[in-house]
Amino acid sequence: MAETDTFIAVDWGTTSFRLWHLTYNGEIINRVTGPFGMSTLAKSDFENVLDKEIAKLGLGGDIPVIICGMAGAAQGWVEVPYLKAPTSLSSLGRGAKQVPAISRRVSILPGVMQAQPTNVMRGEETQILGLLQKYPEYDGVVCLPGTHSKWVRARHGQIEHFTTCMTGEIFAILSNYSVLKHSMVNGGWDAAAFEQAVKQVMEAPANLAETLFSLRTDMLLADLSSAQACARLSGMLIGFELASTRRYWEAASIVLIGESALCSKYADALVAHSSTVEIHDSETMAMAGLRAANTQLENAWHE
Amino acid sequence: MAETDTFIAVDWGTTSFRLWHLTYNGEIINRVTGPFGMSTLAKSDFENVLDKEIAKLGLGGDIPVIICGMAGAAQGWVEVPYLKAPTSLSSLGRGAKQVPAISRRVSILPGVMQAQPTNVMRGEETQILGLLQKYPEYDGVVCLPGTHSKWVRARHGQIEHFTTCMTGEIFAILSNYSVLKHSMVNGGWDAAAFEQAVKQVMEAPANLAETLFSLRTDMLLADLSSAQACARLSGMLIGFELASTRRYWEAASIVLIGESALCSKYADALVAHSSTVEIHDSETMAMAGLRAANTQLENAWHE
Repeated sequence: MAETDTFIAVDWGTTSFRLWHLTYNGEIINRVTGPFGMSTLAKSDFENVLDKEIAKLGLGGDIPVIICGMAGAAQGWVEVPYLKAPTSLSSLGRGAKQVPAISRRVSILPGVMQAQPTNVMRGEETQILGLLQKYPEYDGVVCLPGTHSKWVRARHGQIEHFTTCMTGEIFAILSNYSVLKHSMVNGGWDAAAFEQAVKQVMEAPANLAETLFSLRTDMLLADLSSAQACARLSGMLIGFELASTRRYWEAASIVLIGESALCSKYADALVAHSSTVEIHDSETMAMAGLRAANTQLENAWHE
Repeated sequence: MAETDTFIAVDWGTTSFRLWHLTYNGEIINRVTGPFGMSTLAKSDFENVLDKEIAKLGLGGDIPVIICGMAGAAQGWVEVPYLKAPTSLSSLGRGAKQVPAISRRVSILPGVMQAQPTNVMRGEETQILGLLQKYPEYDGVVCLPGTHSKWVRARHGQIEHFTTCMTGEIFAILSNYSVLKHSMVNGGWDAAAFEQAVKQVMEAPANLAETLFSLRTDMLLADLSSAQACARLSGMLIGFELASTRRYWEAASIVLIGESALCSKYADALVAHSSTVEIHDSETMAMAGLRAANTQLENAWHE
């Protein structure tokens, strides 16, 4: 197989970098991952990092590269204007911007913004485009749990509207920087504690303001274990997210895209409300979306 | 006036140290403050810090010292067992423990715990005892806003029950460690943004899971200023606390004890719900409480 039948796909996020060398048929020839996230790089670093990682694979300078994620943000490599929701994802590739003044052909995909209420995504739209390769007429909700969980209403190839909950980030900063860190220092997991916390917060979301501190005092006074504390905090925050996003998931089919252990937690919480939930791996969806966007992009050039 | 007519009162918290040299009548002869909070000290450091600060005032080793706050926690100087709510504060001084095996007479006051739902305080009980010197039969709610805001039901000299919201700590970690820091980097304050945020979150508390991220996206897409972002985050979190603690403040008289700018924010938020609010300075209340507890302690010795 000639190198010219292949391309390079990159999911370049705030804290992570995932690169695949792919055939146009979607077969993976090679892959690289690294911690070179956007937040650790200056604008002038992006080209060097990319060249170095591609050189590791022994590839030439003429293979086209397509990138999604925060590399296209104002603080990234080259700012790529957002598509504006509601928007069809069939135009995602056409919204790409080429990195100027470098020898390699590098295209960065746009994110999606929403004007009212304001919201933004960069990277998740590409994973949803990946899902559409499997279900072209998907009509339902896509939830992408993570640092900033996204809830997206998708219909027939369009992103209609979406919202964001900072659930993963709030879990991380409470675990690392607040008084609750003392309760969670040994990690662990307790499924019953998770389930109960989700239920309690969904029934009375405002109580979260008070019950967070119980993670500290139940350790001091009631022998709460680290495993219970970790699972309860996770359950509280996911339950709070679900209480807020009820209009998205109630009476809708739901696809979860993300890291599998995290998706399972969301699925457990949602299944208690008899929602139909299907889980897809974020890496597979990102790859499929980048491949589809690359085809859109090349078709646009040949028009 | 002889030194023997005086004593030393210390409010020794997690991050702060406030010491007063007082007459038994409550006149302030001198004061020292410093950043020697419990969280920065090993057990063996407490005596040295105290001796050094007292020596700065040119005082001898025979003046008694009374301490409230986190110095009495398990991670503090000497662990002092909690009083258990409901509890009368007339026994606060009797619950003090003397620091053993040092030449100076140092007594550390207990905090108060609650078994169900679990909760703890160390320091706030002394400020409430200070308030009781002014209103011995106070029957109402005391709110002590701060890193960990306390809401306390007090009646005729007793603490009946209480709760804790981590509002100040969550504001600090979101401002310093989350993506929202970019929106707030220049500080500032916007009273209208605060008021609107309090109102919105009190009306629909669960929405907070989504609206937090609007501080980021309204800056990217809708020119939100740093002053608006700071005030809105503060309003969101205080509104969330008030939504949760409604059973405390609704139809009750409220005394706020704390730092005056912060108390004013709480008063503004509460006044919209036509609660009667009176503000007292936490330093004055701590001093009055320490003096009252010292008298309780000396009376116990003379019995």
